[in-house]
Order: sequence, then C-alpha cells, then structure tokens
Amino acid sequence: MKVIEGGVTAAQGFEAAGIEAAIKYQNRKDMALVYSKAPCKAAGVFTSNVVKAAPVRWDREIVAHSPYVQAVVANSGIANAATGKQGYECCKQTAEQTAKLLGIAADAVLVASTGVIGSQLPIDRILAGVEKLVETKSDTTEAGTLAAEAIMTTDTISKQAAVQIEIGGRTVTIGGMCKGSGMIHPNMCTMLGFVTTDIAISKELLQEALSEDVVDTFNMISVDGDTSTNDTLVVLSNGMAGNPEVTTKNSDYDKFKEALHYINVTLAKMMAGDGEGATALFETKVVHAESKQAARTLARSVIGSSLCKAAIYGHDANFGRFLCALGYSGVNFDPDKVELYFENKDKSILIYKGGVAADYSEEEASQILASPEVRVLVDMHMGDAEATAWGCDLSYDYVKINADYRS
Amino acid sequence: MKVIEGGVTAAQGFEAAGIEAAIKYQNRKDMALVYSKAPCKAAGVFTSNVVKAAPVRWDREIVAHSPYVQAVVANSGIANAATGKQGYECCKQTAEQTAKLLGIAADAVLVASTGVIGSQLPIDRILAGVEKLVETKSDTTEAGTLAAEAIMTTDTISKQAAVQIEIGGRTVTIGGMCKGSGMIHPNMCTMLGFVTTDIAISKELLQEALSEDVVDTFNMISVDGDTSTNDTLVVLSNGMAGNPEVTTKNSDYDKFKEALHYINVTLAKMMAGDGEGATALFETKVVHAESKQAARTLARSVIGSSLCKAAIYGHDANFGRFLCALGYSGVNFDPDKVELYFENKDKSILIYKGGVAADYSEEEASQILASPEVRVLVDMHMGDAEATAWGCDLSYDYVKINADYRS
Repeated sequence: MKVIEGGVTAAQGFEAAGIEAAIKYQNRKDMALVYSKAPCKAAGVFTSNVVKAAPVRWDREIVAHSPYVQAVVANSGIANAATGKQGYECCKQTAEQTAKLLGIAADAVLVASTGVIGSQLPIDRILAGVEKLVETKSDTTEAGTLAAEAIMTTDTISKQAAVQIEIGGRTVTIGGMCKGSGMIHPNMCTMLGFVTTDIAISKELLQEALSEDVVDTFNMISVDGDTSTNDTLVVLSNGMAGNPEVTTKNSDYDKFKEALHYINVTLAKMMAGDGEGATALFETKVVHAESKQAARTLARSVIGSSLCKAAIYGHDANFGRFLCALGYSGVNFDPDKVELYFENKDKSILIYKGGVAADYSEEEASQILASPEVRVLVDMHMGDAEATAWGCDLSYDYVKINADYRS
Repeated sequence: MKVIEGGVTAAQGFEAAGIEAAIKYQNRKDMALVYSKAPCKAAGVFTSNVVKAAPVRWDREIVAHSPYVQAVVANSGIANAATGKQGYECCKQTAEQTAKLLGIAADAVLVASTGVIGSQLPIDRILAGVEKLVETKSDTTEAGTLAAEAIMTTDTISKQAAVQIEIGGRTVTIGGMCKGSGMIHPNMCTMLGFVTTDIAISKELLQEALSEDVVDTFNMISVDGDTSTNDTLVVLSNGMAGNPEVTTKNSDYDKFKEALHYINVTLAKMMAGDGEGATALFETKVVHAESKQAARTLARSVIGSSLCKAAIYGHDANFGRFLCALGYSGVNFDPDKVELYFENKDKSILIYKGGVAADYSEEEASQILASPEVRVLVDMHMGDAEATAWGCDLSYDYVKINADYRS
C-alpha cells in the first residue's frame, strides 16, 4: 500500500469542484461536487439519529435502490435538517439540476448538507452553484482540495487522504475527503465523508467492507457526544482501474479492505484531532479486554468524558477521571486488575496499577499530556480483545465556538 | 407540607458539625458530622460506577447489614477512591474513632468522601478532625449549615432544604443537605446527599421510598455526563417524631414520600443549577411520551448534550440541537409530530412544530434563553408519560475549573 497525494480526484475517472455559492456566508467556498466519468457502485452509512436530515433520507434511497451513482453535490452552511417537505424537495431539485447539466439520471446524484439545523436552503443559490460546479469540475488534485475545503464548517483544516494498491496487476487508487468538527460522536458524526475508488468490486462487497470498517474507524471518534442529523459516509467505485471485479472475499478483497481502512482511519483521526477548539488528538487504546465490544465501549467512554478531555487540555494527570470513565461505561471489570499508561510518541509511563496510583512523576505525566497526540493505554488484563478510540481535549474554544455558532 | 429553614439538623434529635481539618486545603471547612441521639433506620443509594470508592463500599455494607446507624462522617478534598486496601482501612479507622468518641458501635457509622480520586486520605488529620467534630456538634440550624459547607468542593453555594408534615397527629420533619457540582450525571452523581428525618418508618419502606424517588430526582440531573466513583445518598430516620410507625403503604407513607420527593428534587435542582461554571439552571420537560422510561431518556439526552448546553450559555435559539439530542437518545419517534417550546417563568414560545421551525422571534427566544432558569418543553404527542430532567449550561468556566481542578 502506497500513500499518495490527493483525495477524491486521486482515483481514475473522478473529477471534483469547490465553489462559493453564498449559501449562508459570503466569501467562502460552500458547495462541492464529486463526479465520476463512469457509473459507480455506491455504498453508504448514515446517521443513526431518529431525526434525519432531508439529504440523508434522499441518499439512503439512492444507495439502496439506484442502479448506479455518478455524482455527489454537497453544501456547507445549512444542514437542510428539520426542513420538512420543502427540504426534501430541495434535494430533488438539486439532483435534477445536476443530472441535467451532467447528462445523467437524477437518481444517480447524491446530495449532502452540513451546517445549521432548521433553516431552509436558498434553492436559487444552490441551483446556480450546481451550474458553477459543473463548469469548473476537473480531475486535478487541486480540484479535490477545493471540494474538501468547500464542505468545511468549523473545521480548521481540510481533510483528505489517498492510497494505491495493486490488484490483479492493476493499480487501484482509493481517495477520500471528509469534514467534521463539532457534533461528532460514535454512530456517525456530523461528518460528511466521500471516498472514491477506481476498483472494480461488487456492490455487496463494497457495502460490506464499508459497514464493517466504520465500526472501528468513524464510529470510534467523538468530539462532544452529539450524534448529528446529517452524518453521511459514501464510497463510490467506478471500476476504471480495470482489475478483475472483486466478487468474493479473496485476498484482493482483503487488500482493498486494508486500504479502505487506512483511508477511513486517517480521515477519522483528522476529524478527532480537529475537533472544535481542540489542542490535542486524544487517543484511548484498550487492550486485553474480555471482548471486542467491551474494548470499544471502554475506549469510547474515556474519550467521550468531558472530565478526561478537560484534564488533557489542562495537562493534568488526574488519572482518577480516566478510571472513573471506564467504571461508568457499562462494562464490568475489576479495578484492581486494570493498568493505565499515559503515552505520547516518545514515551509511555505507568500511572495506575493494583488499585492504586503508580509511582510516577507528575511533571513527566504532565509533559506527556501536553503533547499534540496523547494516548491513554488501558490494559484490562481480562482477555485478548482490543480497540482504539479517538477524540480531542475540551478547551475554552469549544465552548466559544458552540455558544455562538450561528452568529 | 410546610417548607422550613434548615437542613440536616431540622428534624428532632439530629446534630451536626462542620470543621477545618486541612485534608487537602488550608482555611476551608472540609469535614462534616451528622449525628442522631437515637439509633436510625438507614436507607441508601450508591454509585453505579464499577469503580467504587472505599467509603461507598463501606457504607453499602453498613446500610445492608448493620442493625442501626447513628452517625455520618464526611470529608471533602480527597475522594478516597482508587486507594486500595489502605483506603478501606481508613474508612474503618474513621468509623472506629467516631464510634469511640460518641459511645456507639463502629458499624453504626457511615463515612463519605468527595474530591480528587487516587490520593490517600491523611488519616491523622481525619482522626483529629473527628475529635473536633464530636466536640463541636450541635442541633442548631447553624451547625447544619456548617456541615453543608464542609462537604462542598467546587460548589459555589451550600445546599440544604427542610419540610414538615403531619403524620398521626405528630409533626414529622425531613431535612437534607447535599454537595455536587462536577462529575455529575444520572445514576448518582458526584454527589453526597444526607437526609435526616424523625419519622418512625420501617427500614424496608424507607429504602423503597428512597429508591423509587431517586429515579425522578437525583438520577434526572446531569452536569457533565460523568458518573462518579463516590455518589452516595443516605436517609436516616430516628423515629423521634413519635408517630405510629409507618409499616404499610398507606396515606401516611404517601405523605412522607411526597415530602421526601420535595427534599430530593429541591436538592437535585440546586446541584444542577450550581453545576461547575453554570450560569443557568437548564430544565427539560418531556410530555406526552410513549412511556415513562422514554420520557426520562429523552429529557436526559437533551440536558446532557454539550451542544444544547453551549446554546443555552450563548442564549442561542439553535433549536436543531435540541431536536438532534432527542433524535440520538435511542428513543424512536416521528420528528414531524414533536413540538418544542422555550420557556422561562414568565413566557412560553413555540419554536418547532410539524417538522419545521415555528414562526418565532429570535430576539424573544434569545431573551428566554438568557433567563436564570430556562426550560425546554418537548411535546412528543405519542402518549401520556412525562419526565423532567435538570442540568446547566456549558460555559468557559466549566473548562477552566476542570482543566485545572487539582492545583
């Protein structure tokens, strides 16, 4: 597997665009297009929130029932959630306009929105935006970057990743972009994610690979415990790499899944580290848990704890909070058997063992917690399962951003 | 039911004290005593966290197995959690010292701690503190207040309540105090709560009344979603009111339960409103839910949402966040049927109905959210059940307090 530059335009046959459409703000890119020259198999995972935004309802239908997908139009600024019939109609009109201009079917167009809930999209500006997107689309790396920038809301950096693998003697490329910063929590976050690949693979296996991988990547991150109404992750495969189609779970499938995992985990960690107001990526790795599910639950409980997050922000080795968050996760364990370590990329120090604080240096622990990437390693000493979750610290800026998000 | 002044010393036969013992800080009260001249029936509810502090383990034994209870010793500053055998031994020594000085049995003494997890209690200072507590105990209202102050950690106000009812021609008094500010979440919070009453009631009914009432009071508040290792709520009844003992669920029992509920809900709301960094009490009332459990889950999801809390702090009528928090609660419903209202004590305005924003004034909504007590009313239009949960807004100060709690 070779990591390469780029994002959604890295794979063969994919084009992208990112433009200013003044959806909510002036002078910032807020509409993106991803287009494939060839029809794509599509797989998707969507928010588990009962309140689903209109574009989520639109896309679920398309992914489930359309014969193929060829374009995605996304906007930032307004989420098109809690917008009733008018909101859904807006998805339809956007797809129809896009289809007309690209010469494809309307049910081959996915739509996605992120931003404030409860406002209607300015449909005229959306339709004008679609025109501009189609005019400016291109297969360059720059075009992919423009698209990645256009879907940002409170994100501070655009998020892209791409890799190449060899399958059946052909080079297969997988690239992706995502956005997400606040309202982020396991079970799909306010995240939009779009992965494009030129692999030839059956729709069933594409969906299975995505659904399985999400559990250990995007569903293992949290910024603030709020699962949004708009979470969407879509993978499009257009087969243009020319490999023999992957239709069984053979070694080619495994290779693809590994590459997809790399893209997903890279994008997921970028989101966690760019959480609203974040000053650090906060990783929790649980090892030797009784089951995979227990490991995931424990890891997510720690990275989701406001008090743990605030401790990281304060560089305060207040290990009791980490132990406490494990304790209320719902997983049963013997606290006397647990070991806690604080780690950064250079160091690992034992903090808690045998039911009591280990003999660590507060200064050294605080230094570790001041790293840009902080890891809490939890050894449960109960079994063989492990899981990792990613979040960020809780800072003044999180509150600042969210107390006044709409204005 | 008559609301009266006072707290744990309001009921007949109860004494209290609050003193400085320099457990962790100088120049602040940090040890409290509650003492009953007559042996008490004891009922208790304790943290559901797997990691239970030593005093929680001690108290659970006492409440379950001791023939009676006559005293409680509590300290703030250090939680005596994650302290292994030494921590438990410390509970035992504290109880023995208290018992010796009061001339009662060691298994009639409850202990409670709140503060930093992972440090050992300074046993010498604890034992000296017990001596001072026993010397200074008194049945005055002031003594109750001193005790309520001594259990505070990051609390900004001490929390007490008391009421009187008539049972069997005798005046029965119920008083209580609690502390709790951070690490507060349903299923018992980092809260210590002590309720004293002179009613004569069977131990079984006392426990049942407490266990039932906690579900709709202390378990319905949240400050930050973190369920602590030390949560303890104890009710002591010494029978000195002289009423015929309540041994069945008759109208006297109902009357007592109502009064206990008043004490619990008053103390719980005080805790929520005094959440770390809080500028407002944030109440969510869910009506017409399909079941009581659904109503509770929905209400707690809203008051637990960081984004809803930040919106209250910012006086931002970003109603989508409230809808979103209902949507990820795990309860199923039709978003088009839900109505949302923002309320304060003077006004109620419709914000969301029929799947879309109602026609409300942003200015008026923002004014309501700027009130010291803000209520979000959620009408599910699905059934007859209702529930209320209490929390607070999320402010810069929450982060400030928790990023640097130990220093």
